[in-house]
Amino acid sequence: MAKADKINFSTPSGFPEFLPGEKRLELYLLDTIRRVFESYGFTPIETPAVERLEVLQAKGNQGDNIIYGINPILPPNRQAEKDKAGETGAEARALKFDQTVPLAAYIARHLNELTFPFARYQMDVVFRGERAKDGRYRQFRQCDIDVVARRELSLLYDAQMPAIISEIFEAVNIGDFLIRINNRKILTGFFKSVGIEERKIKPCIGIIDTLEKIGETKVKQDLEKEGILGDQTQKIIEFINIKGTVDEVLDKLRYLAQTISEAQEFITGVTELETVIAGVRNLGVPENRFCIDLSIARGLDYYTGTVYETILLGHEALGSICSGGRYEELVGVFLDEKMPGVGISIGLTRLISRLLKAGILNSLASTPAQVMVVNLQNDLMPVYLNVSQKLRQAGINVITSFEQRPLGKQFQQAEKQGIQFCVIIGSEEAAAQKSSLKDLKTREQVEVPMENLAEEIKRRIGSSPFGEIKSQK
Amino acid sequence: MAKADKINFSTPSGFPEFLPGEKRLELYLLDTIRRVFESYGFTPIETPAVERLEVLQAKGNQGDNIIYGINPILPPNRQAEKDKAGETGAEARALKFDQTVPLAAYIARHLNELTFPFARYQMDVVFRGERAKDGRYRQFRQCDIDVVARRELSLLYDAQMPAIISEIFEAVNIGDFLIRINNRKILTGFFKSVGIEERKIKPCIGIIDTLEKIGETKVKQDLEKEGILGDQTQKIIEFINIKGTVDEVLDKLRYLAQTISEAQEFITGVTELETVIAGVRNLGVPENRFCIDLSIARGLDYYTGTVYETILLGHEALGSICSGGRYEELVGVFLDEKMPGVGISIGLTRLISRLLKAGILNSLASTPAQVMVVNLQNDLMPVYLNVSQKLRQAGINVITSFEQRPLGKQFQQAEKQGIQFCVIIGSEEAAAQKSSLKDLKTREQVEVPMENLAEEIKRRIGSSPFGEIKSQK
Repeated sequence: MAKADKINFSTPSGFPEFLPGEKRLELYLLDTIRRVFESYGFTPIETPAVERLEVLQAKGNQGDNIIYGINPILPPNRQAEKDKAGETGAEARALKFDQTVPLAAYIARHLNELTFPFARYQMDVVFRGERAKDGRYRQFRQCDIDVVARRELSLLYDAQMPAIISEIFEAVNIGDFLIRINNRKILTGFFKSVGIEERKIKPCIGIIDTLEKIGETKVKQDLEKEGILGDQTQKIIEFINIKGTVDEVLDKLRYLAQTISEAQEFITGVTELETVIAGVRNLGVPENRFCIDLSIARGLDYYTGTVYETILLGHEALGSICSGGRYEELVGVFLDEKMPGVGISIGLTRLISRLLKAGILNSLASTPAQVMVVNLQNDLMPVYLNVSQKLRQAGINVITSFEQRPLGKQFQQAEKQGIQFCVIIGSEEAAAQKSSLKDLKTREQVEVPMENLAEEIKRRIGSSPFGEIKSQK
Repeated sequence: MAKADKINFSTPSGFPEFLPGEKRLELYLLDTIRRVFESYGFTPIETPAVERLEVLQAKGNQGDNIIYGINPILPPNRQAEKDKAGETGAEARALKFDQTVPLAAYIARHLNELTFPFARYQMDVVFRGERAKDGRYRQFRQCDIDVVARRELSLLYDAQMPAIISEIFEAVNIGDFLIRINNRKILTGFFKSVGIEERKIKPCIGIIDTLEKIGETKVKQDLEKEGILGDQTQKIIEFINIKGTVDEVLDKLRYLAQTISEAQEFITGVTELETVIAGVRNLGVPENRFCIDLSIARGLDYYTGTVYETILLGHEALGSICSGGRYEELVGVFLDEKMPGVGISIGLTRLISRLLKAGILNSLASTPAQVMVVNLQNDLMPVYLNVSQKLRQAGINVITSFEQRPLGKQFQQAEKQGIQFCVIIGSEEAAAQKSSLKDLKTREQVEVPMENLAEEIKRRIGSSPFGEIKSQK
């Protein structure tokens, strides 16, 4: 019962927390993502949650983001320190709102200690003062990888990204997905070729990027507002609607490359895209998992070449579940050096909440325990503890039931937490070095010699450490 | 080169960050700790970094901790929103400074969705405005477990804690450690029996707790200042200096229980301790890993029964590397209900920095990649990509070298990152479906048919996924 006239102990708006079964789902996804990232040699880093404010604002602006500044609150017995040096006199600091600015700062801070190309992953939480609404959180976890070079960065790094995305989403079994690949130089080049002025190109790309959200009619109006002529708009719309297999689209692009005027940048983009696609194929990404989509632009100015988005087929309304691209200018605000890079990001917290809501994933059991050793009689506790330890040593997660309660209650307790197996040992079994193994799902109960118990349970659990995960695609 | 007249991109004081090899060490330790926690059925939770200030201050005071409040900083284009509702009008919020208050809030928030006894682990970062000095950070990771019940909580949960501590520190191979166990009721009971007034007992326990830091002479002086008489002090000092094997100390305690006056609480404490020790033994904790130490008190008022500390033998100056105890009053500030619990905590960030400094642990290789597939000639890239993918599918972490550089440079690049194996394939090898496997440690090079490559590498890596970890005990 909550206390009367009491503290409001709810989480602050926009700072939700998971129940154990949901948190376990998040850990399962994090483990899977990490395994794939590491298999390509990406190494973990974690930058502090707090950076100097000037670092976070280094890119001229913080976009539309509200940053959270931090300020020390002294305990009552230390109010006298208010004016002293140290914590209270410290510089302006704030919570990071993405992983990109901190990555740039990390590289600047450790330039001579890192090996380039520097391939890192980072899966921390970031903070944004968004209005809290459906699926928008003020604290959320982003899983990012980037590979950054000090001079040239091979396009094969771009080709690895779809392979990584594909492996992750295959592994977590969330249904059919499609990675859409494009190249910003193709878009920019095409816009130039139809006579659009340099300064209008970025705004136009921004408009194209909204196509799926606002529809073709609205895109046409927005382009008109930018001063794009009707026949230019027509050509652009036709262009970004080019459809077909990867090879068909590449053929059309090669044909256009020979026919359009001022095609230099366009040709560079097409060549880059061909190289990336060849790499993606050599890496064995299944053909049905990727396509070329000329309407993909990624809003940010930041991207200069390859761009990616990933959609869940049948659930397109969820938006892109993994996006990214190639850029040229990461550390420029901190160092006198250009560093090209390519990266992707999964907004994990938001993704999980949407997948749970859509019923595509379910939360896991509320405990990692796979077995409960029940308590039939307190004087057998040494046996229960010993059996529990043997099972743990065999890699099985075990809860020993310490309270002596009716067996049915103990089974209920196990079932409520999603534990499938109970081990039951009475004095006769203990004397005969036997046990009864009850499967709470099938209600089946078998007698197993204690020495075979771990093996028998492992056989029944199967190979997956998350045997209980359910996907409904 | 850092830019002139530029942003200070260093981390804020007290907010350090790890290099990749150190972060990998942290992940290795986190994985190990999590595996042990989960093997006992502890389930993960993660509370937000940000809580309402009134929640964080609910326990009357925040101790000596400086809490960090958060306040939104609007971007320049949204200054007009300053006075609007939503983010800017929000309640006072701050960053959590431990995992205990948030655990209490979590239980209050989800009371009807959790199963009790509720056994959870939490390994997030917390924030304190400490003066940044040796080993004290303003952001650090704590690995906590607690099990909390709504009524009674069996003492066997107390017995599990040393088993868990022991398994963790055995697994991470940091040398000999000793878990010191005591019971606050024994201390309190003994103090009562020598005639110390109730109100002086907590301060006295606080003084006893400093014994190792300040020495016996100073402890005597401090007790005298509290108004403790000379012969009382003498008895206390003799008592907390009782040494011997676990059984010897238990014998002495049983003897005292029969001889001292007003022994009721003392006897309860001894009985609890006996139960816990029996459980610890039944759980198979090696005898040399634990002892009874009557001088262990744990400063906090909070603890009411079993208390633990863990020291690294030969490195006692590091202080306790894992501590905790039994308490009765977790959620009282939020709910009209008593909930007994028992928990332990590892201050991981501080521990790692101290173990690294003391040379007890070393950082790992700077990449998780175990193999580099080198680039002898660009036209064989499809082969390199294919071989890399086959190795990854076999569970090996691989970097493919995309830049065509002299072989020696590529080996250097691999070695610099701690990669032990290089796969070398020229056109002849490719045609014959062979490869050369070079061990950069032994400089040995062997020819391996491509189809056996994964198997051969796995055999050489050995079973540990962190084969490169070095411990110097």
